Amino acid sequence: MNDNPARPAAHRQGPGSSDRIVVTYRLELAKGADPEARALDVAREQTVELPAGGYPPELDSLILGRIEEVTSGDAGSALARITYDPVTAGDDLLQLLNLLYGNISMMTDVRVVDVELPDSILTRFRGPRFGMAGLRALTAAPDSRAMVVGAAKPMGLSSSALADRCAALARAGVDIVKDDHGVTNQPAAPFRERVARCQDAVEHANSGTGGATRYFPNVTAAFDEIGDRVEFACSVGCRGVLVSPMLTGLDAVRWIAANFDLAVLAHPTFTGGFYGDEGGMSAEVLYGLLFRVAGSDGVIYTNAGGRFPLDEETCVRINERLRRPMGDVRPSLPIAGGGVDAARVPYWIDRYGEDMGFLVGSSLYAQPDLESAARELVEVVLRHGNGP
Amino acid sequence: MNDNPARPAAHRQGPGSSDRIVVTYRLELAKGADPEARALDVAREQTVELPAGGYPPELDSLILGRIEEVTSGDAGSALARITYDPVTAGDDLLQLLNLLYGNISMMTDVRVVDVELPDSILTRFRGPRFGMAGLRALTAAPDSRAMVVGAAKPMGLSSSALADRCAALARAGVDIVKDDHGVTNQPAAPFRERVARCQDAVEHANSGTGGATRYFPNVTAAFDEIGDRVEFACSVGCRGVLVSPMLTGLDAVRWIAANFDLAVLAHPTFTGGFYGDEGGMSAEVLYGLLFRVAGSDGVIYTNAGGRFPLDEETCVRINERLRRPMGDVRPSLPIAGGGVDAARVPYWIDRYGEDMGFLVGSSLYAQPDLESAARELVEVVLRHGNGP
Repeated sequence: MNDNPARPAAHRQGPGSSDRIVVTYRLELAKGADPEARALDVAREQTVELPAGGYPPELDSLILGRIEEVTSGDAGSALARITYDPVTAGDDLLQLLNLLYGNISMMTDVRVVDVELPDSILTRFRGPRFGMAGLRALTAAPDSRAMVVGAAKPMGLSSSALADRCAALARAGVDIVKDDHGVTNQPAAPFRERVARCQDAVEHANSGTGGATRYFPNVTAAFDEIGDRVEFACSVGCRGVLVSPMLTGLDAVRWIAANFDLAVLAHPTFTGGFYGDEGGMSAEVLYGLLFRVAGSDGVIYTNAGGRFPLDEETCVRINERLRRPMGDVRPSLPIAGGGVDAARVPYWIDRYGEDMGFLVGSSLYAQPDLESAARELVEVVLRHGNGP
Repeated sequence: MNDNPARPAAHRQGPGSSDRIVVTYRLELAKGADPEARALDVAREQTVELPAGGYPPELDSLILGRIEEVTSGDAGSALARITYDPVTAGDDLLQLLNLLYGNISMMTDVRVVDVELPDSILTRFRGPRFGMAGLRALTAAPDSRAMVVGAAKPMGLSSSALADRCAALARAGVDIVKDDHGVTNQPAAPFRERVARCQDAVEHANSGTGGATRYFPNVTAAFDEIGDRVEFACSVGCRGVLVSPMLTGLDAVRWIAANFDLAVLAHPTFTGGFYGDEGGMSAEVLYGLLFRVAGSDGVIYTNAGGRFPLDEETCVRINERLRRPMGDVRPSLPIAGGGVDAARVPYWIDRYGEDMGFLVGSSLYAQPDLESAARELVEVVLRHGNGP
């Protein structure tokens, strides 16, 4: 594909590409701009970050991102497929992010639309410890039906009041009750007190119903506090936690998944910067690939038709990326949230299938009785399943 | 002071607002949208995240963001000034980010244009350990002139080759030599080997010149590796490090600043998601306020006129935010980078003043001899200073 002597033939597209990181960028082009030249700008920015001549020429074949193909995109844009040697991703997830979308994040005319990771990267980051099947096992939720996720909220309630809400959701048979992502360590509900009470409340409810609802506290916290919070969650019997990866740094997810017998739900807060039309990163790459590879057993995203702008097709693509076979990396549970109306859950199950979680918050709290509202939702989901 | 029993008058707009977090949002309005209602959506999303009725009404005065003022903005937009009780920010920087721009980051029609933090927040996060003056003391750079920052690059060079480049920059009198932000722990230059060699090379050069160039290695790394890398940098005599806060999570900066006698330079990689016109966050809030409050002694941003889209007025605002008096939080050094042409540095000094660093990479490496090119730049900066 390329006659440029600086790029040896062995590095051209072909079988050899299978061990490379493959990124498709959409390039918004200024009038008259050369798409090939712009693609090379991107490849250069993300690797050597120097013009030719500023480094030994052999790095052009070893390090510089390789332009595999540049084609026409929509609205005068171009699609550039660029591959990188996995060695450029160093040995951690953060450098992988930096390679995919580091400095070029600041070029508002470049968008990451697709990423494929080679096995050498996938085996380095193990992905989810539990995955979709593990989450179901943890909560005794058969794969014949979708899972129901509830939230203990809002910020400002006391630990006891939040625990009461957890108990109501557990009695109703919700599979997972998570902390609201803004509930951290506020004085009204200090972390340890809250987590102990909410966990006890859910266990007590389970003992009454024979259910297996799990409470996942939010452990998003200061850099040197995350470990303590995760350990505390383990110590009181929690089987999973909620993390906001774009706040903690994505690698905190990997670290928890690798080191603790806890499921991880990833929350999308602070990810909206990737939503640009011309810049940003596609939601299926961010939530569907990167959050999964990092080790999220379930990934919450903001569903179409709620308070946020993702459309249905994008949500379908996120679901597909979270579920698709990918080496030894387990599938993650897609969890649609962000304003899901309880009454519309059957529609979404029909649309997305049973391999889903639905996080329903406001729509339950807006009803007169939280427990009854949640129970009705759970029953609808059970009836809407595809078998016993 | 206030007639609402749940909320003392001191919390109304006016002098009493000084103990609240003040955020100005730009709201892109759909045709016919009610700006006040939209502002309330934002305040709600960022705090209680539930519609009225879903929680005890007293939380409206305690927790819900308070709409102080909604005015008309440009192009049919509105500007909403919303204040939050500092208690909602919990006890860590990540919850502060989450409060300012968490879920609403995913509403692409809401932009954070200004933030003011009350003293109670500023005293909680101490800000830079060294600050601009401390960086100058560390490098014996008088405040009569701008500082020169060089980069050891590119990725793919051996530790020895990178050390040679550090030495050349140090002999030329550059104040700080930092690792390229994509140089982490690649096999060509493993972290410990590279840092030891680069540090030794700079110290050796200093002993020849009598200079005080400092080498700042990149410690952006896996969650459980950052601490080891920071300690190693200390152990070989480094006096500062480079961190990419949006990769590590912003709180890693605070943790390093609070616990190690090391200066921190913050790198802007992966921040471009904030650059939206209608969504995102203003660059002066992100780099000028949040990076500073977190503890960055120097903040690298992508200057106007280089490879990235920030304009000159935005850069002036970033500089101003980094330098302005702010309680006990030290000023940080603004560092303009991202394609600064060595020949244009005098222009930028005239434009921005001497309280600046200039990170010049490509423009030096593109010249035949790195050391001569860097020396010439240093001499230009010395001549262009405003005194001895």
